Amino acid sequence: MKGICLYPGSRKIARQGAAGPFTTWAIRMRRTGQAALLAALAAGLAACAAPGQPLRGTGDLGLVVERASGQLTLVDTTARAPYAQVAGLGDLSHASAVYSRDGRYAYIFGRDGGLTKVDLLTAGIAKRVIQGGNSIGGAVSQDGTLVAAANYEPGGVKVFDAKTLELVADLPAEYTAADGSKKFSRVVGIADLPGRRFIYSLFDADAIWIADLSDVKAPKVTKIGKIGHQPYDALITPDGRYYLAGLFGEDGIAKLDLWQPDKGVERVLAHYGRGEEKLPVFKMPHLRGWAVAGNRAYLPAIGRHEVLVVDLTTWKEVGRIPVAGQPVFVMARPDGRQVWVNFAVPDYSRVQVIDTLTNTIAKTLEPGKAVLHLEFTPRGEQVWISARDDDKVVVYDTATFAPVATLAAKSPSGIFFTSRANRLGF
Amino acid sequence: MKGICLYPGSRKIARQGAAGPFTTWAIRMRRTGQAALLAALAAGLAACAAPGQPLRGTGDLGLVVERASGQLTLVDTTARAPYAQVAGLGDLSHASAVYSRDGRYAYIFGRDGGLTKVDLLTAGIAKRVIQGGNSIGGAVSQDGTLVAAANYEPGGVKVFDAKTLELVADLPAEYTAADGSKKFSRVVGIADLPGRRFIYSLFDADAIWIADLSDVKAPKVTKIGKIGHQPYDALITPDGRYYLAGLFGEDGIAKLDLWQPDKGVERVLAHYGRGEEKLPVFKMPHLRGWAVAGNRAYLPAIGRHEVLVVDLTTWKEVGRIPVAGQPVFVMARPDGRQVWVNFAVPDYSRVQVIDTLTNTIAKTLEPGKAVLHLEFTPRGEQVWISARDDDKVVVYDTATFAPVATLAAKSPSGIFFTSRANRLGF
Repeated sequence: MKGICLYPGSRKIARQGAAGPFTTWAIRMRRTGQAALLAALAAGLAACAAPGQPLRGTGDLGLVVERASGQLTLVDTTARAPYAQVAGLGDLSHASAVYSRDGRYAYIFGRDGGLTKVDLLTAGIAKRVIQGGNSIGGAVSQDGTLVAAANYEPGGVKVFDAKTLELVADLPAEYTAADGSKKFSRVVGIADLPGRRFIYSLFDADAIWIADLSDVKAPKVTKIGKIGHQPYDALITPDGRYYLAGLFGEDGIAKLDLWQPDKGVERVLAHYGRGEEKLPVFKMPHLRGWAVAGNRAYLPAIGRHEVLVVDLTTWKEVGRIPVAGQPVFVMARPDGRQVWVNFAVPDYSRVQVIDTLTNTIAKTLEPGKAVLHLEFTPRGEQVWISARDDDKVVVYDTATFAPVATLAAKSPSGIFFTSRANRLGF
Repeated sequence: MKGICLYPGSRKIARQGAAGPFTTWAIRMRRTGQAALLAALAAGLAACAAPGQPLRGTGDLGLVVERASGQLTLVDTTARAPYAQVAGLGDLSHASAVYSRDGRYAYIFGRDGGLTKVDLLTAGIAKRVIQGGNSIGGAVSQDGTLVAAANYEPGGVKVFDAKTLELVADLPAEYTAADGSKKFSRVVGIADLPGRRFIYSLFDADAIWIADLSDVKAPKVTKIGKIGHQPYDALITPDGRYYLAGLFGEDGIAKLDLWQPDKGVERVLAHYGRGEEKLPVFKMPHLRGWAVAGNRAYLPAIGRHEVLVVDLTTWKEVGRIPVAGQPVFVMARPDGRQVWVNFAVPDYSRVQVIDTLTNTIAKTLEPGKAVLHLEFTPRGEQVWISARDDDKVVVYDTATFAPVATLAAKSPSGIFFTSRANRLGF
């Protein structure tokens, strides 16, 4: 027996696999006393897969964040079932995830500042670091080599090697406050841009920064100030061209043309926001939830029971659709034909589906109590919905609106599929 | 030792893996004579991965078709390198590939009517059937359960179980010819639609058909006739809404609104085609190559050294960009900022890059002789280009236009990455 990986029915090209999990297995095996044969086995397997792992593609995998227990449930969207759990991730309230470019690893950003690299194939923690005091999200560089975490505390961005989670760049969000003192701003709305760059907003400094890490030893940060008061979240349009930051401190949206950043930030949708009446807002909507169908964007109104329709050529509002509550996530099915909406408390046990051809409500569903998130499979035939207070995730067929599977999960919040690895600005 | 898969650091949920490849390995091992231990090992491993396989994600894998030798080179876009070869696929001239929803398996449609299911993890042929006389492409249903092959000979579509390649539905493209006789049309431009449906065009019958396989035992076929003369290829717009078929027998494009198919086919771009002068056309462009950036589509002109710019709101031509030859593939980088173009003979050793902000040529490259295809990594930082007559594939950094890797391949043609599994209508 040779110490190589053999590919049946193919010519072989040498490759290195993960040796780590095998080591554990080898030690366990040696206890049986068959040392000689096991040494031979070890030689044969060391460069290959650990035998305890199922051989499988990663394109249909994902994870559900269980905020109460600090663990993840790993799921398979073909089987529509969980296949493993991973514990020990710390405080996962409001945690988010991004993926390595091969779809094997998830990077989880926790509210305790933890950054955890989870292996979806071995269902284990590959690496975990406490990188900050309070992280609300992150991004993977376009080339997959860097992971950036956006921190509230200490305010700034930290950039890590995607393989090792070694810190490679620290980018404090230092600014001069009104009283002349130096402070660090909370960072929100981080996204990757082409060419090892990250864009993010500084809540306390009314700014958008772009960090270029082409040379990780000498990052270059471009700073755009006075973009509007208190950017609280942001997104990149699906075509990759515009960065849009919602403003907490005033109405309107700050829009930056990423193809022509020198033109500066433009204000659009002047009436988008809390308004002069300062309506009670039970939960600020997530901007990542904006949906684009054709040339129109569907936005969660703030404080109102409405979804706004915006023409993306003129950036003007062209319609409003009455919905069942204050919208939180407004997300398009990948083909754009439907937009699914969940709501803030007290209407958070419903989900509504907008037909984008008629801009009317096609369906109202009640998946369970406290719907926190929803995620479409990449081609849109299923949507997975987390109902936190019913401890379950419900999977719907988006064509028939029939529930096709229900999974138990402890206080599930975010749901993230590996297909996110393929998307820009996410 | 227990007969289960162990996930280090996690709670276990039972799963079945591939037992097939393990069997071979077990037989080989039994020859060493350590029967008792090996039986225990077999019990422990049977439900898990074969030890000869590297454990890895599939999100960054792909394949290069080597048309001359009937084999595939499997590639890794993170390493920018080949990792295995798979032979025995028959006639691969003009072969195309689609992927299973987990990204593990490629389905290859060959000109000899062969449909081959290739396992990218074991680098072997999982299954191969001769399903027709001459296939030019296929599609996987949105839910991943069905594979459809579009055939020239005998004209029609055959639908297979994606797991087993067992034939589940045969849909002959039978039509009544001008002389009243029954004939079978060649089928082109097949794509998946939401809900286990496939759409395709009948070259000889001037028709577009939609097959609904919700019930595979009783497929329903909707037939739309008189769509224009000789549809030769087709595509679905990236937003999933429109099916567009190019016409060989006359100018113009047949456009079907998939959200409102009852409205029938509309003719757009009346001047798109070979024109009244009947220009010499060295190679009909591939419609799959149409690029959309923002609200504009970039189309290969037929017979002319131009790329056409079309406004997708009005479906009118709004510009023409002079290029170095008759364009074949016109493909947008995933963020839409660049459109890459290759050409028919005699200009087929060049590739040009259009900047979609200015609609001018940003770069002219000479990757090698006889450039047949190009494929972007899903987030667009790399493009892989096959140069058939130089027996190589060249990988470019799309930001700098620098070649970053060169791979040897025998007469490479199509390049297909697993990220296609995530796309609708592809």
